[in-house]
This record gives sequence, structure tokens and C-alpha cells, in this order.
Amino acid sequence: MQSDLWLEEKYKNFIGYRYKINKTLFSGKSEFQSVDVVETEGLGKMLLNDGLVMVTEKDEFVYHDMITHVPMFTHPHPENVLIIGGGDGGTAREVLRHKSVKKCVMVEIDKMVVDACKEHIPQTSKDLNHPKLELIIDDGLEYVKNTTLKFDVILIDSTDPIGPAAPLFNSAFYQNVKKCLTSNGIVVSQGESVFFESHMQQVLLGILGEHFSKVSIYNYSNLTYPGGLWSFTYASDTLDPIKNFNEARVTSSNLKFNYYNEQIHRAAFALPSFMKAKVQHLLKN
Amino acid sequence: MQSDLWLEEKYKNFIGYRYKINKTLFSGKSEFQSVDVVETEGLGKMLLNDGLVMVTEKDEFVYHDMITHVPMFTHPHPENVLIIGGGDGGTAREVLRHKSVKKCVMVEIDKMVVDACKEHIPQTSKDLNHPKLELIIDDGLEYVKNTTLKFDVILIDSTDPIGPAAPLFNSAFYQNVKKCLTSNGIVVSQGESVFFESHMQQVLLGILGEHFSKVSIYNYSNLTYPGGLWSFTYASDTLDPIKNFNEARVTSSNLKFNYYNEQIHRAAFALPSFMKAKVQHLLKN
Repeated sequence: MQSDLWLEEKYKNFIGYRYKINKTLFSGKSEFQSVDVVETEGLGKMLLNDGLVMVTEKDEFVYHDMITHVPMFTHPHPENVLIIGGGDGGTAREVLRHKSVKKCVMVEIDKMVVDACKEHIPQTSKDLNHPKLELIIDDGLEYVKNTTLKFDVILIDSTDPIGPAAPLFNSAFYQNVKKCLTSNGIVVSQGESVFFESHMQQVLLGILGEHFSKVSIYNYSNLTYPGGLWSFTYASDTLDPIKNFNEARVTSSNLKFNYYNEQIHRAAFALPSFMKAKVQHLLKN
Repeated sequence: MQSDLWLEEKYKNFIGYRYKINKTLFSGKSEFQSVDVVETEGLGKMLLNDGLVMVTEKDEFVYHDMITHVPMFTHPHPENVLIIGGGDGGTAREVLRHKSVKKCVMVEIDKMVVDACKEHIPQTSKDLNHPKLELIIDDGLEYVKNTTLKFDVILIDSTDPIGPAAPLFNSAFYQNVKKCLTSNGIVVSQGESVFFESHMQQVLLGILGEHFSKVSIYNYSNLTYPGGLWSFTYASDTLDPIKNFNEARVTSSNLKFNYYNEQIHRAAFALPSFMKAKVQHLLKN
């Protein structure tokens, strides 16, 4: 007899997203959160933290392309990259495709996420042993406070501002992020959804505006994040993601992406009017 | 005691979208489909045909802005507009905001949808008695076959290619649509989702390519359509939606939209690479 097993992600107490699963591959409880990897019927393998869908094999390329390649192709020559979070490995995988990169440091707080993805989701974790990658299991908050290294691009690949990622939505954290950036540095952060989390977008953009002279937000859509339109914030003191974007660098890289391309880079910064009304006053260019 | 009532839209037999509902406002079965209007906890009132979410008050502006204003601002002076489907009234509402419009004909097959929305969802149906609107309850297939009228813009505001809308995904239908267009006419059609329905997008673009010399597809994201990225197809013999788009017409219209704006118009045609790979060979410009 075929089993009929479903998992459900509740959102805002009035929406539920259900996915049919074939089997559970991993289920654990770390010091920080519950961690589950399941094999779904239609979306490939899926990672959940505290019951929230983080990654599926079917659509992870959308998120990982957009967090990575927008800043990596805006910066003229990114050599040193820092990832805070990103335990599934997908962001590191995309960063490491850029030939200019000499070193990528990834600081993930939860070893269980890394280990579960290494064992069960090679699609995202396949480059976590890459020679240019330094993987540190530590609190990103502490890392940016204490390190003396400087980075060209910093990617805040975090969960929502509940659970272990909550302190990342904070001005003191971004003061330290700025300290870790080179003068042409760029920081991109997971920026939530405009439909239901526009307040959090405003908080994050406000914090970035305290520390950086260029602040933007850009959108993408994947299959599994509640609310359809999701975003990343972008901040830098010198590099504007549109004016300083050199399309020729994408072409000459000879890299092919499933989601990202030159047109998508520019288009992602076009904001729907209802989103403009909520965040435009917080943008700086 | 508070009731805990949820409805579920199943998609592809492996995803379920659940919405908490406060009460059912209407529930009927027409000659064509089941028709339900419910009041949800978080998304306002919601229309469902055959159990599939068509419209919610919270996000209907996304769909209605994008089906309407992209062609209406590409055409230099749309006077006569035909809507096939669109029983909730949201598309007609947006068409009728354009001052150039002299007449809008709307042909909806299912009177029950119109009546239920008139009674329960004034947000979308409020202009269904507008003096410039001629609302015809009839089969759109028959209407475009038989009418001698010509239109500047035709909007195929249909459900998915199952149920009553199935014959609209068909070459004979578009041959008649073309017959009903002026020489500068534009037809825009509900174009499904790239994640799971790219075959249907290919079929539709292929049909449009048989009849029109300019064929495009553009994307949007709302809250409630499964798969995140949804699309509209665009076809015309003369007007390119980017090259012939005159941004000044948007500004001078003095209209304000919740989703649509000049930047979104252009950005919507930027296709993610995985979508390009599936449809680019079918586009014509």
C-alpha cells in the first residue's frame, strides 16, 4: 500500500502549504532548531528548519542565483567573499563558480544543517569541501565582531528573523558587517516578502541606511516561499547595483545560470508600486 | 467556540494550498463549474472555480494590473477592448480606468460567476454596470467567431486549460481573435506558470506564432497562484511591448496602480534563464 504522507508549513496562522513526501531522510533537533530533510513527491529533496521550508531541489537555484550573482557581477573583481548562514551550501556553490574568487569564508551556526545537507542534499552541498572554502561552525554575529579579515562581498543567507537568525536583523550586526567590508564592498541579505513582511523589510532597509550610502532591494519568485514575491536587500558605500553593473562581465564569465541573467539583474530592481510605497523612502542611491 | 475551517487547493497531487476561512458566502454549481465565494482569515474574500483560487481581495490587483495595463499602455490609443472571461470584473474595472476607452465588451460564459461576484466581491465587480461596458453572457469562442466588431485590445482572462476554458487554448480560437483585432491590435492571454506548466506555455506561444508576427511572454507574481512565477502571453502584428512602449503615456494618464508602473512594464519581459530555454525559440519580435 502506498503511504500518503504530507508535511505542512503554516504561515501567519491562516495559510498552510502542504507537500506530499515519500520519505523522511533526516530528522534532528540541534541546539538551535529542528532540522529535517525529506524527499518530496514533486519538488525533490527538501530541507526544513523549525518546520519552515528552506530549500528544495526543484527551485533552490532561484534563491541561490539571486543572492549570489547580483552582487558578484556588480563588484568589478570580488576576491574574498563571506557567507553568514547558508548551511545547505547552495550559496557557496554559486560563489565558487566565479573565477575571481580567491577565498570564500562561510560561517554557519548550526553544524546539524551542514551535516544533514552534506549527507542528503549533494545538489546544494557538493562544494562544501572546495579548497577555496573555509567553513566555520560559529555564530556569524561573533565572527563579524572578531575577525580582522576584509571581504569584497558579504552574503547574509539567513532564515527569517525568528529563531537563530533574529540577531542578524540588527544595527550592531551591520556595523560589524561594514567593518568587515572593503571600501568597495557589498552586502546582500535575505529580505523577506513584501506581501506580509514589509515591516521587517522597512526595519532592515532602515538599518542598512544607517551604515551605507547606497541601499536597494530587489525581488525574485520561487516555488516554495510563502507570499510569491521575495526579496534581497543590497547595500554598499560605492557601488550601485544598476549604474555600476557591467553586463559584459556576465558574458565574458562564460557562466550559465538557471535563473540569473543580465536582464533579470536589472529587472529585479523594478519594484511594484505597492512595494515602492512601503520602501522607496528608505532606498538610497 | 471559534470554528477552525480551512479550504484546500490541491495542485499536481503533491502540493496543497490551505486557507483558513471565516465563512462561506456563496456556493453553487453552474452548467460549467462549481463556484464558491468565501471570506478568508487573511486574504479577504476569495473566488474559487472548481476549487481553484481565482481571485482574492488581497492580491487580485497584481493579476488585473498586469493583464490590462501592459497592452493598454503599449497600444497608442485603445478605444475598443474585448475581454473574454474575467467574470469577477477586475479586468473590466482596470480597462475602464483608461480615458481613451470608448467601449469595453466582456464575454463571460458563466453567469453564476458574475452574479456571485456582483453580490459578494464589489472590490472586483464594482464597474460591471459601467455605461461603457457591454457585458455578454456567452461562449467567448462563439462570440469571436460571429462578431463583426474590431477591437484594439483583446484580453483572454481565462482559467486554466481544463474545464470551460480548455477550447481557448486552440489555434482556431486565435484565428478568430485575430479577425476581431484592428491592424494595430494586441491580444494578451493568461499564460500559466513556467515551473509546472511550461508545456502549456509552449503550446500557447506556438499557436500565437501561427497568427501573429510579434509574440512575447511576461511574468508576474501574486500570493495565491501555485508555482510563484505566472505569466501572460502577448501577441500583435505591429506593436512590440518594449520598443513601442511610450512611458510618457503612463505618466500623462495620471493613473496610479498598486502593482503596475513603467519599470515593471519593462522588467516583466525579462525572463529567467530556465524559462528562456523553454520558450525563447517561440518568441517573435
